[in-house]
Amino acid sequence: MTPKEIRSLCRTGKFTSPTPGLAPGFVQANLVIVPEAQAFDFLLFCQRNSKPCPLIEVLEKGKWEPVHCAPGADLRTDLPRYRVFDSGKLVAEVDSIGHLWQPDLVSFLIGCSFTFDAALTAQGLPVRHEQEKKNVPMYKTLIPCAPAGVFHGPLVVSMRPMLPGQALEAARVTGRFPRAHGGPVHLGNPAAIGIHDLASPDFGDPVTIHEGEVPVFWACGVTPQAAAVESKIPLLITHSPGHMFVTDWQDSQLEGETKV
Amino acid sequence: MTPKEIRSLCRTGKFTSPTPGLAPGFVQANLVIVPEAQAFDFLLFCQRNSKPCPLIEVLEKGKWEPVHCAPGADLRTDLPRYRVFDSGKLVAEVDSIGHLWQPDLVSFLIGCSFTFDAALTAQGLPVRHEQEKKNVPMYKTLIPCAPAGVFHGPLVVSMRPMLPGQALEAARVTGRFPRAHGGPVHLGNPAAIGIHDLASPDFGDPVTIHEGEVPVFWACGVTPQAAAVESKIPLLITHSPGHMFVTDWQDSQLEGETKV
Repeated sequence: MTPKEIRSLCRTGKFTSPTPGLAPGFVQANLVIVPEAQAFDFLLFCQRNSKPCPLIEVLEKGKWEPVHCAPGADLRTDLPRYRVFDSGKLVAEVDSIGHLWQPDLVSFLIGCSFTFDAALTAQGLPVRHEQEKKNVPMYKTLIPCAPAGVFHGPLVVSMRPMLPGQALEAARVTGRFPRAHGGPVHLGNPAAIGIHDLASPDFGDPVTIHEGEVPVFWACGVTPQAAAVESKIPLLITHSPGHMFVTDWQDSQLEGETKV
Repeated sequence: MTPKEIRSLCRTGKFTSPTPGLAPGFVQANLVIVPEAQAFDFLLFCQRNSKPCPLIEVLEKGKWEPVHCAPGADLRTDLPRYRVFDSGKLVAEVDSIGHLWQPDLVSFLIGCSFTFDAALTAQGLPVRHEQEKKNVPMYKTLIPCAPAGVFHGPLVVSMRPMLPGQALEAARVTGRFPRAHGGPVHLGNPAAIGIHDLASPDFGDPVTIHEGEVPVFWACGVTPQAAAVESKIPLLITHSPGHMFVTDWQDSQLEGETKV
């Protein structure tokens, strides 16, 4: 299926499942929607923490069509599933947010590690959660993000176990994607960044770590979402975990520096 | 002089001159200050046009201390010279803006090509305007920036003439600095990007082009400033051309991907 076909099935309510592995080679994105009153602060949070929050596209107030990464798409209907938060509390999980739309809402699309998982796999490096058909394990750390206005919180990381030589190769491969979290932020001893039990991730599923492997940690796109929930703003809408927005951009467009 | 000493001389009114060549190795930045009402749109303009507008630091509403790149500094006094625009019209050129400060002003510091000029020189590549002790020639092009809210305008480029082999080497060297405009956007025929007379730059000074050299064009930090002037917002404050803010960051901090 093409990205457009997937979005069309979401729009008509025929697709409501997680998106990993769909439309391989195309960029999938995290969605965060906040009211105008918090939009500057949230944009600033992303700018100050660009490794966990690489911006794919930010829409102007009230707009729902991401004209840069998916012309013709509608962010109110074209994701398989959404979460709605009222003052930090999850109040609904829905397949469309058309009925909740307000003219002051601002939408943010943020890069996701699915992009570099594909690059790791292409390089023959292990992506354990894919091998085990699980969600990637994610952990809150003791590394603070740079706060911005009402938004603050810890860096959330994803983890992939690898042999030391593979980890070094993975650092090179993922470093090519500064707009999809870039290279790892830590390797080895989890306690050094405040993670005390790899078997109990804060989000996603635990994965097997084989003899001789070390945990390798990357900044994760759940970071801005967690900070937005934590801020307890009156209204916050996000994608449901794993139910991403599928864009028309190819993974290679997140490599290296941006175009003009 | 250290960056702090330069800022201190600016603060006490003892230094009001252009800053090129001062505190070599330290990042200098463009300054743009807009009211809160236009701040989201301007941040979005910079995000959408990151090659001409690489953000060094954005301050929260009303703040004047850039705690990330120059702790202790005061953006109201620590630049040698400022320009004040009322509805797009230049109304004052001053050494301090303390008397104009309002609690709703938002300050943006944007990367500047002085960073990569140092890298080019270190690599033995010619930086003609430095050799001729002039300001770099800058030109408006026909390449449109991605608009954002009230802000729109053409890409402005700076130009350095080089032999073709040097141009290729310069592309490699400057490509290392995605947060200081990165690699060139064009090379050769100026008319292809809407420049009709290299001897008449829109900003800065013309420079000599020797036999066999081609003009090489880079995205320029004047772009966001020109768009802000063009938007005719009620109040806009910028640095005066060439009178930059000298930060405590070293040029190497603008290399490659960002830290967490």
